[in-house]
Amino acid sequence: MRIDQRALNQLRPVKITRNYTRYAEGSVLVEFGHTKVLCTASIDNSVPRFLKGKGQGWVTAEYGMLPRSTHTRSDREAARGKQSGRTQEIQRLIGRSLRAMVDLKKLGENTITIDCDVIQADGGTRTASITGAAVALIDAMNVLLEQKKIKHDPLKGLVAAVSVGVFEGEALLDLCYEEDSNCETDLNVVMTQSGEFIEIQGTAEEKPFTRDQANQMLALAEEGIKQLIVEQQKALGW
Amino acid sequence: MRIDQRALNQLRPVKITRNYTRYAEGSVLVEFGHTKVLCTASIDNSVPRFLKGKGQGWVTAEYGMLPRSTHTRSDREAARGKQSGRTQEIQRLIGRSLRAMVDLKKLGENTITIDCDVIQADGGTRTASITGAAVALIDAMNVLLEQKKIKHDPLKGLVAAVSVGVFEGEALLDLCYEEDSNCETDLNVVMTQSGEFIEIQGTAEEKPFTRDQANQMLALAEEGIKQLIVEQQKALGW
Amino acid sequence: MRIDQRALNQLRPVKITRNYTRYAEGSVLVEFGHTKVLCTASIDNSVPRFLKGKGQGWVTAEYGMLPRSTHTRSDREAARGKQSGRTQEIQRLIGRSLRAMVDLKKLGENTITIDCDVIQADGGTRTASITGAAVALIDAMNVLLEQKKIKHDPLKGLVAAVSVGVFEGEALLDLCYEEDSNCETDLNVVMTQSGEFIEIQGTAEEKPFTRDQANQMLALAEEGIKQLIVEQQKALGW
Amino acid sequence: MRIDQRALNQLRPVKITRNYTRYAEGSVLVEFGHTKVLCTASIDNSVPRFLKGKGQGWVTAEYGMLPRSTHTRSDREAARGKQSGRTQEIQRLIGRSLRAMVDLKKLGENTITIDCDVIQADGGTRTASITGAAVALIDAMNVLLEQKKIKHDPLKGLVAAVSVGVFEGEALLDLCYEEDSNCETDLNVVMTQSGEFIEIQGTAEEKPFTRDQANQMLALAEEGIKQLIVEQQKALGW
Amino acid sequence: MRIDQRALNQLRPVKITRNYTRYAEGSVLVEFGHTKVLCTASIDNSVPRFLKGKGQGWVTAEYGMLPRSTHTRSDREAARGKQSGRTQEIQRLIGRSLRAMVDLKKLGENTITIDCDVIQADGGTRTASITGAAVALIDAMNVLLEQKKIKHDPLKGLVAAVSVGVFEGEALLDLCYEEDSNCETDLNVVMTQSGEFIEIQGTAEEKPFTRDQANQMLALAEEGIKQLIVEQQKALGW
Amino acid sequence: MRIDQRALNQLRPVKITRNYTRYAEGSVLVEFGHTKVLCTASIDNSVPRFLKGKGQGWVTAEYGMLPRSTHTRSDREAARGKQSGRTQEIQRLIGRSLRAMVDLKKLGENTITIDCDVIQADGGTRTASITGAAVALIDAMNVLLEQKKIKHDPLKGLVAAVSVGVFEGEALLDLCYEEDSNCETDLNVVMTQSGEFIEIQGTAEEKPFTRDQANQMLALAEEGIKQLIVEQQKALGW
Repeated sequence: MRIDQRALNQLRPVKITRNYTRYAEGSVLVEFGHTKVLCTASIDNSVPRFLKGKGQGWVTAEYGMLPRSTHTRSDREAARGKQSGRTQEIQRLIGRSLRAMVDLKKLGENTITIDCDVIQADGGTRTASITGAAVALIDAMNVLLEQKKIKHDPLKGLVAAVSVGVFEGEALLDLCYEEDSNCETDLNVVMTQSGEFIEIQGTAEEKPFTRDQANQMLALAEEGIKQLIVEQQKALGW
Repeated sequence: MRIDQRALNQLRPVKITRNYTRYAEGSVLVEFGHTKVLCTASIDNSVPRFLKGKGQGWVTAEYGMLPRSTHTRSDREAARGKQSGRTQEIQRLIGRSLRAMVDLKKLGENTITIDCDVIQADGGTRTASITGAAVALIDAMNVLLEQKKIKHDPLKGLVAAVSVGVFEGEALLDLCYEEDSNCETDLNVVMTQSGEFIEIQGTAEEKPFTRDQANQMLALAEEGIKQLIVEQQKALGW
Repeated sequence: MRIDQRALNQLRPVKITRNYTRYAEGSVLVEFGHTKVLCTASIDNSVPRFLKGKGQGWVTAEYGMLPRSTHTRSDREAARGKQSGRTQEIQRLIGRSLRAMVDLKKLGENTITIDCDVIQADGGTRTASITGAAVALIDAMNVLLEQKKIKHDPLKGLVAAVSVGVFEGEALLDLCYEEDSNCETDLNVVMTQSGEFIEIQGTAEEKPFTRDQANQMLALAEEGIKQLIVEQQKALGW
Repeated sequence: MRIDQRALNQLRPVKITRNYTRYAEGSVLVEFGHTKVLCTASIDNSVPRFLKGKGQGWVTAEYGMLPRSTHTRSDREAARGKQSGRTQEIQRLIGRSLRAMVDLKKLGENTITIDCDVIQADGGTRTASITGAAVALIDAMNVLLEQKKIKHDPLKGLVAAVSVGVFEGEALLDLCYEEDSNCETDLNVVMTQSGEFIEIQGTAEEKPFTRDQANQMLALAEEGIKQLIVEQQKALGW
Repeated sequence: MRIDQRALNQLRPVKITRNYTRYAEGSVLVEFGHTKVLCTASIDNSVPRFLKGKGQGWVTAEYGMLPRSTHTRSDREAARGKQSGRTQEIQRLIGRSLRAMVDLKKLGENTITIDCDVIQADGGTRTASITGAAVALIDAMNVLLEQKKIKHDPLKGLVAAVSVGVFEGEALLDLCYEEDSNCETDLNVVMTQSGEFIEIQGTAEEKPFTRDQANQMLALAEEGIKQLIVEQQKALGW
Repeated sequence: MRIDQRALNQLRPVKITRNYTRYAEGSVLVEFGHTKVLCTASIDNSVPRFLKGKGQGWVTAEYGMLPRSTHTRSDREAARGKQSGRTQEIQRLIGRSLRAMVDLKKLGENTITIDCDVIQADGGTRTASITGAAVALIDAMNVLLEQKKIKHDPLKGLVAAVSVGVFEGEALLDLCYEEDSNCETDLNVVMTQSGEFIEIQGTAEEKPFTRDQANQMLALAEEGIKQLIVEQQKALGW
């Protein structure tokens, strides 16, 4: 029995709210249980220097946690003057995952920046971010289509993400903070709508895991991501 | 007639929601019209180095805007590696205003840090921040009282803030972003419950203002702040 | 009786020395009693990126204190790797105040940067800076006129600044460091030659002030600024 | 047939040279083909602040590339004033992998820092770093044992790492730079001597991979890591 | 004939003004022709961490140029967020030169920091800084003696510095900015009262110099430094 | 008798290995006894902004020490976020010395950057760097000639460098770390093939040196540099 009474293969309640704020071209509040992340998509009608003149667009992500989104306050990264290694690792992961959704040629010379800001953190902020950001990105691409800035929909398909772990030898889906802290192994998985992998990131600082456990975790993740993609589709009204 | 149909001396709809997030000792979402700021108060049972051993506490504030809280995306300060002059100016203002509410001796050797993070910005973010942060601060001080960490309530009284401006020669209360951009003069006023001033910050880059206009603006601010303090009291259930 | 024997409404001895250094287009040493600030104006025949092609100029200011201008040595900001919040607040104030003196259209696509470097600090460094910088700015604009880089004098009028405070219930003009440290309230006022306000910045961390006290302070400031403008005019030989 | 004539499941020539430099407690040059990384282990008889008084040690890693270790020169991170997100991601990975080798309690209150500096980069720098650093770490722990600074060997077992990828649908072991650039998928795997996983990091920016491909890659990695552990053992004279 | 009519072996007019500002324990304005540097000495009754408990003191220096001390404005180092390589090179040189004047054991556990801030720069700012700073340092050490903070005078002897160069094959003493810019070789020399060398720093980016030219330059420097030491003695009233 | 049995005027064994790494246009490992520095030369077919359109090239250098190149580990400069004053001083010295070897007009609008990374440090890293970098620079210029990017060889002649010192009154050539730490005086000398000086940098923090000692040291340096230039020529196959 899990700390919050869930079954081993059960997601926390998922909620995806579009148009959460007014100004961004895409704005999604995503909730995985108590974890809440605001994902906004901003369009810039230009591309970074390394892509100038290549006839393609770019998708990138930034990630931050509000200082008191967590159980104890962390320093504000803007005040410390740099982003932590963890922050950079996460925003690079989100960016790669989102680029896998998009045909960058069809995006034209536009950049979409997704800001994932954690309002409340109870584990799984990076996987919630990817799941919410995917929806915000689609909203922003639709703005480009409506404004006739691009002709063809650059969307290749949905992408969502979930964490899985091993606790006392058993695989668990969608870890909350307390589970995450106690797990022997922590695996973050990003998958496409068609059931293929974009990213697998597994870490076993405490206790190595076996091939068999890896397989159990990947199977759980696949199950969870399917449900998350259904939630995304519902939110999008598909 | 104002851009959003308000009377010259009319506040935008004000909403103060306590316990907006779970972990902070005080957590308030304050809304002035479309402006939304999350104010969290965090307790640390120690004081900064310059106060060690002086038998008093400290109250300080940090301020940030989510990159896409505004009409166009601004750079993330954590990524740029420093806080702007504007950010620092605002967080210093919020900190001073909140310290004016508190008897630091009675606070004991505790520090309360108020984080004001702007979720959506439509003008008046610093005055909304002060108004919401005052409530979050009270919630945090009450936690200290309930936990018997301090014996006497350090609260000296409520404080709230509002902006006023002069537009085409007439004084306006509580400027939204578009008014703020077009005003000749912009005055931010922080007052106590008893009608005294904590801060007056007036700027007239476009067109200087007269003593008379200053008086009109201060009178409007006084009127507005009285209403804001009523809202704070309602939110606190007083 | 004040600590330095002045009357409540008396300025410290004011001295404005033009052409204090050789290379700058404007170079003024301003002294308010023991406070000494070197204000240099430098012309750059271009504008910042955000003004390119708009047919107007720009005036901006930077501020710094020599590490041992004060009673005890402060860290050198260049060595610490960043300007403090206080420094940024002050240089933004100086910049806004000076821009209020200038018709930026008439300035053409030129930038004038005023550096205010505090040689010795005994309170009132920001108000002395504004008062001296105004003269250095005029000298630099005259260089542009003499060099035929611009056709029309961009000067709209003189601007000067002074601090006022409340100490034991009484309003004081032009606070020295020791008065400033003990005051309940501290108000910095910037006014034009024609008696209108550019900036009012009042702070009452210790003890809030009443409307009545605000009025007394503003009246004192008005009186002091009139005298400062006379000093500026004398220095300019007007 | 691979670009360098290797079989799909063939490692590049591996060379592990101990005592490569004179001063470090462990100093290993590891070569995977043209990739050369100098791994030095330094002992510090104290622990970071967050571990003070907990009776355990710490193992951490830093990573850097010489500016011209690569085909074209990259900026020196020390000159740019910050480590890139990639650098931080890699050094965090190395640190976690090495900590999985060590019983931190038995290490006592000592810190071992492993510096992995890339002399020449031809793909696989992070996996070569882990493989070489493991040996340097053991040398340093043996110094502690010889100096009687610790009583029991903290080593839990060897750890090594390799990259695998999918290129035109086929899985490849130990990618060189050119293969890495063209691969659809890139997976870095860290395993223990006993065949369990420490880290799996797979990325498919170009083209998602299937469960089946994941399995093929993991099997290849397992095969490669077994050989790398044999090389480590030879180098250690076991 | 030199640009400013001096003989080849002639110093510019030298002026050393003590007690130039009020608060520092030593405060000297040194002028070498148009070059003006304010040198302040500040006492701190502690030592840097690396000297704690060693029963000795420390002398260190910082150097800065006001942004418009030069012919064209340079960026403010505090605003750019770092000191240039040139600045660091110079302040290290000043610090080493001053430490050579002092018996650090006799200084006790005190630190004297000398700030050399260039008000106006016409070449030779580093040599003027050393020459003026030496006097400020003595004034500060005398304060320590008067306050009975130390028992024995730590002064080992005076130190002064001058630049020499080769221009069109001839050696010149004490280069002004224009000479410095055109010289083939530039040598900065620091010597003691007893005619021994503390530092020699010669640079010939344009055209290498011979052993013979080196000897001529060192002879000229010796001659110049003798005169500077007489000026220091006069200023000190010795 | 010296600590490593050398005669007073004897260099440590010198070894210059070209083509040490694969990708750089010039790549030299230089060894002065236990001191080992990797010097790579990288060509960039453009020039820094301040030289654009002037029809000349640029040569610049960067310097770094691997954290554990030394007896005890130093912080990684990239992690600390800035280069130390010592690092900047050294890389400026290397850059000036190398530019003295080159006719920048003949180099065309190309930049050659020399990275000097210290693998192992036993004193004399800056002089070894210059000596090795000179060879790497020649290799890179020959690449430009072979690729017909430039028509005329920009080389003006070889340059090498050595340290000399005074220990217990006697002059020593090519100081190792232990000698360097104990020397009263430390002089770094850079000379051309034709026996002229490029740089002389002497420092006597401990004990000033006489004109006579300076002469002895310069004579020793001249002797040592002649031998180093022979080693460079051998390495180059001249």
